[in-house]
Amino acid sequence: MASSSSLSISQAIVAGALNHRGSTNSSDRLPLRSFTIPTFSGLKSTTSAASCPSRLGSARRRLCRRLAVQAASVETLEKTETTLIEKSVNTIRFLAVDSVEKANSGHPGLPMGCAPMGHVLYDEFMKFNPKNPYWFNRDRFVLSAGHGCMLQYALLHLAGYDSVREEDLKSFRQWGSTTPGHPENFETPGVEVTTGPLGQGIANAVGLALAERHLAARFNKPDNEIVDHYTYVILGDGCQMEGVAHEACSLAGHWGLGKLIALYDDNHISIDGDTEIAFTENVDLRFEALGWHVIWVKNGNTGYDEIRAAIKEAKTVKDKPTLIKVTTTIGYGSPNKSNSYSVHGSALGPKELDATRKNLRWPYEPFHVPEDVKKHWSRHVPEGAALEAEWNAQFAEYERKYKEEAAVLKSLINGELPAGWEKALPTYTPESPAEATRNSSQQCLNALANVLPGLLGGSADLASSNLSVMKQFGNFQKGTPEERNVRFGVREHGMGAICNGIVLHCPGLIPYCATFFVFTDYLRPAMRISALCEAGVIYVMTHDSIGLGEDGPTHQPIEHLASFRAMPNILMLRPADGTETAAAYKIAVLNRKRPSVLALGRRDVSQLRGTSIEGVEKGGYIVTDNSSGNKPDVILIGTGSELEIAAKAADELRKEGKAVRVVSLVCWALFDEQSDAYKESVLPAAVSARVSVEAASTFGWEKFVGSKGKSIGIDRFGASAPALKLYKELGVTAEAVIAAAKSIC
Amino acid sequence: MASSSSLSISQAIVAGALNHRGSTNSSDRLPLRSFTIPTFSGLKSTTSAASCPSRLGSARRRLCRRLAVQAASVETLEKTETTLIEKSVNTIRFLAVDSVEKANSGHPGLPMGCAPMGHVLYDEFMKFNPKNPYWFNRDRFVLSAGHGCMLQYALLHLAGYDSVREEDLKSFRQWGSTTPGHPENFETPGVEVTTGPLGQGIANAVGLALAERHLAARFNKPDNEIVDHYTYVILGDGCQMEGVAHEACSLAGHWGLGKLIALYDDNHISIDGDTEIAFTENVDLRFEALGWHVIWVKNGNTGYDEIRAAIKEAKTVKDKPTLIKVTTTIGYGSPNKSNSYSVHGSALGPKELDATRKNLRWPYEPFHVPEDVKKHWSRHVPEGAALEAEWNAQFAEYERKYKEEAAVLKSLINGELPAGWEKALPTYTPESPAEATRNSSQQCLNALANVLPGLLGGSADLASSNLSVMKQFGNFQKGTPEERNVRFGVREHGMGAICNGIVLHCPGLIPYCATFFVFTDYLRPAMRISALCEAGVIYVMTHDSIGLGEDGPTHQPIEHLASFRAMPNILMLRPADGTETAAAYKIAVLNRKRPSVLALGRRDVSQLRGTSIEGVEKGGYIVTDNSSGNKPDVILIGTGSELEIAAKAADELRKEGKAVRVVSLVCWALFDEQSDAYKESVLPAAVSARVSVEAASTFGWEKFVGSKGKSIGIDRFGASAPALKLYKELGVTAEAVIAAAKSIC
Repeated sequence: MASSSSLSISQAIVAGALNHRGSTNSSDRLPLRSFTIPTFSGLKSTTSAASCPSRLGSARRRLCRRLAVQAASVETLEKTETTLIEKSVNTIRFLAVDSVEKANSGHPGLPMGCAPMGHVLYDEFMKFNPKNPYWFNRDRFVLSAGHGCMLQYALLHLAGYDSVREEDLKSFRQWGSTTPGHPENFETPGVEVTTGPLGQGIANAVGLALAERHLAARFNKPDNEIVDHYTYVILGDGCQMEGVAHEACSLAGHWGLGKLIALYDDNHISIDGDTEIAFTENVDLRFEALGWHVIWVKNGNTGYDEIRAAIKEAKTVKDKPTLIKVTTTIGYGSPNKSNSYSVHGSALGPKELDATRKNLRWPYEPFHVPEDVKKHWSRHVPEGAALEAEWNAQFAEYERKYKEEAAVLKSLINGELPAGWEKALPTYTPESPAEATRNSSQQCLNALANVLPGLLGGSADLASSNLSVMKQFGNFQKGTPEERNVRFGVREHGMGAICNGIVLHCPGLIPYCATFFVFTDYLRPAMRISALCEAGVIYVMTHDSIGLGEDGPTHQPIEHLASFRAMPNILMLRPADGTETAAAYKIAVLNRKRPSVLALGRRDVSQLRGTSIEGVEKGGYIVTDNSSGNKPDVILIGTGSELEIAAKAADELRKEGKAVRVVSLVCWALFDEQSDAYKESVLPAAVSARVSVEAASTFGWEKFVGSKGKSIGIDRFGASAPALKLYKELGVTAEAVIAAAKSIC
Repeated sequence: MASSSSLSISQAIVAGALNHRGSTNSSDRLPLRSFTIPTFSGLKSTTSAASCPSRLGSARRRLCRRLAVQAASVETLEKTETTLIEKSVNTIRFLAVDSVEKANSGHPGLPMGCAPMGHVLYDEFMKFNPKNPYWFNRDRFVLSAGHGCMLQYALLHLAGYDSVREEDLKSFRQWGSTTPGHPENFETPGVEVTTGPLGQGIANAVGLALAERHLAARFNKPDNEIVDHYTYVILGDGCQMEGVAHEACSLAGHWGLGKLIALYDDNHISIDGDTEIAFTENVDLRFEALGWHVIWVKNGNTGYDEIRAAIKEAKTVKDKPTLIKVTTTIGYGSPNKSNSYSVHGSALGPKELDATRKNLRWPYEPFHVPEDVKKHWSRHVPEGAALEAEWNAQFAEYERKYKEEAAVLKSLINGELPAGWEKALPTYTPESPAEATRNSSQQCLNALANVLPGLLGGSADLASSNLSVMKQFGNFQKGTPEERNVRFGVREHGMGAICNGIVLHCPGLIPYCATFFVFTDYLRPAMRISALCEAGVIYVMTHDSIGLGEDGPTHQPIEHLASFRAMPNILMLRPADGTETAAAYKIAVLNRKRPSVLALGRRDVSQLRGTSIEGVEKGGYIVTDNSSGNKPDVILIGTGSELEIAAKAADELRKEGKAVRVVSLVCWALFDEQSDAYKESVLPAAVSARVSVEAASTFGWEKFVGSKGKSIGIDRFGASAPALKLYKELGVTAEAVIAAAKSIC
């Protein structure tokens, strides 16, 4: 699976040699460059660079580093010779600050400090095709420190992406532009994931790297490594502090994701000032503890060969992810604002911008790209096209020799579902034995695993409770990356963010992840990003109410259904039985650009009369009805395990002669999308006698029960007791539904 | 500030010597014990115990540890002599498993494995008064691995707490019992915080330790260390994996919280099986990287003197928190289930319980506490009373010499607010300059800081955006723990959980914490625990809508107001101007058992005519009205920055002759609590023409606008653009309100 250097492909192509498995020595590329590259400066080995300094006391290390930074700046500014690489780096810096200045909004500090590593990465290492940002085998890049998005926009612009033209830079952070205030994959081709909320980007990158490793293990052949790319990340101090980053990095180390290379912008400034005030841990040592390879680039401001050598070294480490700590100066080049928080998140202002132009000897107008820089970068368009063509040829060869695998891989790349896949879903009748919907979910997952080659996922250490294991597969592990059960450990937030990375790797991958529904709180930030960035992750959330019983209120969701119903672009599904669970999976699989949350129960529920796949697909539908003329005396509306309660209450009321309609409102968002006529057919405006029943907050139910209706629910926290006792004590019973119905009809 | 050992107080009391600053050698206590304590076994120093093995490869370390565990078990089972300490430890084990068995629900594994460390902690180290669980100067204990709550219940029972009597153990996990399925401070005196959702407990403990350190720094005198206790934690592998634990532990290391001692139950089993499948990082090394002192107790199953020596060593380390990695066997004693996940979360079952009784040579009936064990533990009641009496005498002495400080400290301990504190809040009139509510918030915080001695807090690295610094104070740091601005770094979840610990330390501490409103997603799990465990944290959440502008949809809350309105026992407040912001602070400060979330804006808003403190206290109220007889033509309802829009729309509509009422619905939960008559006076049932306006999801508004009303809001994600452009494009304008109003009245 491990590849020779991806760069060698590019070299080989440009040199006209088509064997992509040629030389792995990237120094071979040097003749292609039109500028003078300083000779390799002899970066210290990991051991000396990272371990010795990291053993120094924190204060000493900081001081030592700061002196190095200062010395490096002075040295640069005193240089008289401006190399092309410096010119390119300064182009990136000024495209960034000019854009921020024009918008009078944004974050100039990071792009100014990270321009050197950005340049080296995009210009020298990454393989991509600017004219097809979705080419499957491209290297992935994630700017985890998303506020520095102008760095990425400047790089995409120089590299020739159509998504970021000069006019796009000039409309940075404006309505309708492709250059929003943080990187958004759904707005800007060339951006892989949506970042901004800190820490999640590196976790997305772990997901991207996991996807690559998994697909490589499944599809690569000794003579054809058809899946083969790196995942690069730039993350900052902010990301490093976030727990989600830690969770994901611990997993990346555990999984030995050798093709994940993270550049840590170690600029020791965050919004509140020097990181000394809140962040003095030894990051190098921590990453060693997590099983990463660690390299320290001491001069990230001008040490181009150090950066280059570090990335090269990282690529030689196949069994561990690499953290390259790149010490930089935030706002590098700004004489009065660099190295301070003031350059982090607002425009430099005309005066300081002028001073920065002088300081960096930049005579150009705003947004100007010097001709030699333009010319230098222009080769990425033909090179990228050649890379893709080469890969396409490689794929044709692969297809010829490995027809079956090629067909599967192609479906994953294109996101095509196999014809008739949904027929694999289990079916239920009212005679099928009662079972908890978490059990039905397990059946669905295991059935789908046989027909959906892109289905992979797992639980945050609750597999035996969530019933989320695909029994036909083993565990995705360092030694078995071809397997499809992912063991996330007790890391919910990392799990969600990793799944976002997986689904955004290629459209045919369908990740699911599982925990207790109440712990959606832990991964909610990632779920929101799923919804925003159109990542169709399937969230398998069991133990969805007080029905879990004795674990008590810390484990019993109350407000969670409402909280997701209020979130845009996410499908909150709460199926009532086996049929509805199968339907929920069908919907979740089909919605590749909208995540689905499946709230599933722990307790056995009957297979209900009247539930249907088609009904669930409409979000809400009539389950049973003994009324005529669309005029029931009362409408009972339930979801999940409480639909059974509604059905029981209906039976009783009907015995007493009432015309009762039972409605399952399994997914409010889908119901909202139906025609007015359909909605009227289910919930006729003329019938105001409506009762909802759901073992959850009644918040939001007024929309469906109206001001004259009643909602049976739980507007307090739960308690520790057996489930049935809780239902009784908290009043979520058929009796309560009947009483409520009688009071209004 | 650093004290001599707190145990010395206890010794001194029991020995009749009243000078609490006497010997610090805890071996002085030995004569008090009625059982034979093995002599100090010569635990390896931190360096040798932790650093050498931690440098071994992960697999080798695991193997080595497992062999040690196995050897330890064998050795124990072959012992013929049963010491009293073993008997006490087995009492704890069987109280736990018997309770779980009776409930047929619960987690026996942890208590069985952690009984030794639990015994040593509670019986030998911790100072507490069982008859007054709220005695201020007690040591705090947090079971971060909350599922193992039977460990704590057994210990509280043995120690003589009235909250856990035999009948309470017998009603473990039953409705109305004091022994719920996870530790809940609001149910069980003696339990400090509510745990269960993993990782948060250790973060709560960091908050408790922070509170102790802060109060000690403020109040202790060279001759009277009136604040002086330790915070102990037991956490497991699950907690270690959670990002929130990492965030909090990084801060604990940064702050050098020397009196925080965490015992890590290193049993290498989690629900999904061996931690090898998901958790292979080097924990020891990581904690060293975080600035902790690390000790490894290799035999946590029977190595009582190792455990004892480790805690003793930890207490000597004053400038760093200590992690004691205690290697144990989960379910120790169960011959067929120990060392496997099967013992984690369900009852042993009658057969295995019998086998365990035989294996541990335990001849007693369920729930039996042998007389000698009972007698041994019985001394904690008089000892605890003496400890408190001694401290009370110490406090009397303190009060005599330091009258002013004593008065303040007493108010913090009792949770009494200074008379007239609310007069310090800033006042606004319609003539006051327009300002963003985040600025009003800053004024409130700074005004309150002068009058509320318990106010402390800070931001997750957004202080300059949240405007959350109390300018009159410096930063709480290792060297300046008496200061009150806390710098949390970019660690939202850790921040929230730490604040829960602070507020639960003593009722007079009023922690606030700040970030952008959208990032409540990151700390939502801690906010839910605040609500559940009655922790009156003040959440200062700025940038509360699309009004933040260019940062874009990752930073713009949409569903967040709804999501908190649906959560029980939390006050979601969205003030509209300076007056309402001051009112929100008044409410937040007064609600010590209910957390408050203040959603605050970034953009300037006018000081509105008609806003009032009294109105806000009712949750919703009439701001302006030109109708009579409680019969307006239309009611416009707004919150936050959109109340200004409602007011503008009302002005226009009134010009056209309409009778328009403007209502501020600043806190739905408080409005719900008002009398029906009051609610009718604000929102008369007869007036169905109602329009709400809020730059957020319309979810939930049907409750107030009814089926005939209209809601102006945003049911999609935001976008990156200047704020006013966004309001216009997304249709949240006075024009839209006017049009909606006209369409229905």
